[in-house]
Amino acid sequence: MEVFAVPGLPEVRPGDDVATLIEDRTDIRDDDIVLVASTIVSKAEDRAADLSAFPPSERAEAIAERISDLTDEEKDPRFAQAVLEESDELLLESPFLLAKTRFGHVGVNAGIDRSNVPGNDLLLLPKAPTESAERIRENLSVDASVVVTDTSGRPFRNGQRGVAIGWAGMPASRDWRGEVDRDGHELEATVESVVDELSAAANLVTGEGGGGTPVAVVRDWEFGDHGGSDELFRDHESDLVRQALAAWEYEG
Amino acid sequence: MEVFAVPGLPEVRPGDDVATLIEDRTDIRDDDIVLVASTIVSKAEDRAADLSAFPPSERAEAIAERISDLTDEEKDPRFAQAVLEESDELLLESPFLLAKTRFGHVGVNAGIDRSNVPGNDLLLLPKAPTESAERIRENLSVDASVVVTDTSGRPFRNGQRGVAIGWAGMPASRDWRGEVDRDGHELEATVESVVDELSAAANLVTGEGGGGTPVAVVRDWEFGDHGGSDELFRDHESDLVRQALAAWEYEG
Repeated sequence: MEVFAVPGLPEVRPGDDVATLIEDRTDIRDDDIVLVASTIVSKAEDRAADLSAFPPSERAEAIAERISDLTDEEKDPRFAQAVLEESDELLLESPFLLAKTRFGHVGVNAGIDRSNVPGNDLLLLPKAPTESAERIRENLSVDASVVVTDTSGRPFRNGQRGVAIGWAGMPASRDWRGEVDRDGHELEATVESVVDELSAAANLVTGEGGGGTPVAVVRDWEFGDHGGSDELFRDHESDLVRQALAAWEYEG
Repeated sequence: MEVFAVPGLPEVRPGDDVATLIEDRTDIRDDDIVLVASTIVSKAEDRAADLSAFPPSERAEAIAERISDLTDEEKDPRFAQAVLEESDELLLESPFLLAKTRFGHVGVNAGIDRSNVPGNDLLLLPKAPTESAERIRENLSVDASVVVTDTSGRPFRNGQRGVAIGWAGMPASRDWRGEVDRDGHELEATVESVVDELSAAANLVTGEGGGGTPVAVVRDWEFGDHGGSDELFRDHESDLVRQALAAWEYEG
């Protein structure tokens, strides 16, 4: 398979048609996978915001104060309020906010970035990245798949890697259950998160978080003849780490 | 960049020279990254083992009994003993064993697989996968990098993805600290785990866990002019999830 970045994208503005911006700069073909950094999807969807739009609740004030007490960082309570509004579950309240977004992705600060949009403080993630991916896919002139990507850290391992937060035109995972390896043994590991692996591959060529070139294309990769699943995000019941975090409090 | 699987590898046996097996089947070039599934590295290093080699301690008996009580699965205490011997920290004892290997990787059952080696029950991970990667790299006829890969699950997200457990010829991560995006803003996410992203890309073309074709090559990818780090595995202090798991017990 081939993985390449799409160069020359302009600064994206609210209302821009991301599919057209991409196809103006490179030929997308049937069966390509187009990986789009969430930053430009958010910009096209007018998800830049100001801290002043998030007057802090008492809870946000308390969270910010506790983080400021426990760390060297002075936390803005309006930022904590933005995280609360973008999420439906806090996995950690200190020493940093780890939150589950309404669409299921778990990330530090619910994936909210300090904005690089001039004149705005924050860049929120797309509200429903899978719907974003579907819209971009529909606006392409060919039958390609689209993945909206982000970068995120993880437990157990240092550093960030590309992950998928929305996808269209393909399942999130490929299911090897019941298949056998070349020795005839049934495969143990059963479900492969291909949209995450594709997002990781894309991040290798786009530069950190798509900050360099926010779009990559994977060509000549085949999903193959497998079952698929769109259950990329774990539910609470199957997520022992979430259960453990819920029962735990950081003491500094 | 290009990612392709190396076809036609034979069943690997103890003592085999993995580098030669690979170069007999494909031209490896300077600056390629050769990604080798841990299964064949383990086979070459004679890491297949039998359950009978792990007479269970009292602790292993207790762990197996508790898992059997809590789940439908009858856990073999000798298997629990093997996990204990391959690890130096248990993050979870039930409903399954999540363990940190001696070389730092956190995985279910310390990465021990039921063997697909005829006549053996288990396949252990390489003892020191970074040393394995170094040996393979030294035996290549060109100046390529080598990554030993595995697949593993993760919190928050369903499914498995390729990860690195050892590497040679390149750093594990690339460091973007202090660099700026195209708008002149300093990058927020700072360290990118490129060996994990490369392993994820490789897993897309090799088939599940390298069960299809256990070797992949990444060509024409550049690390670039960045700092690097080999601190892929988090230490306990920086790993809040490990701290939370240590304070928690699964109740079923």
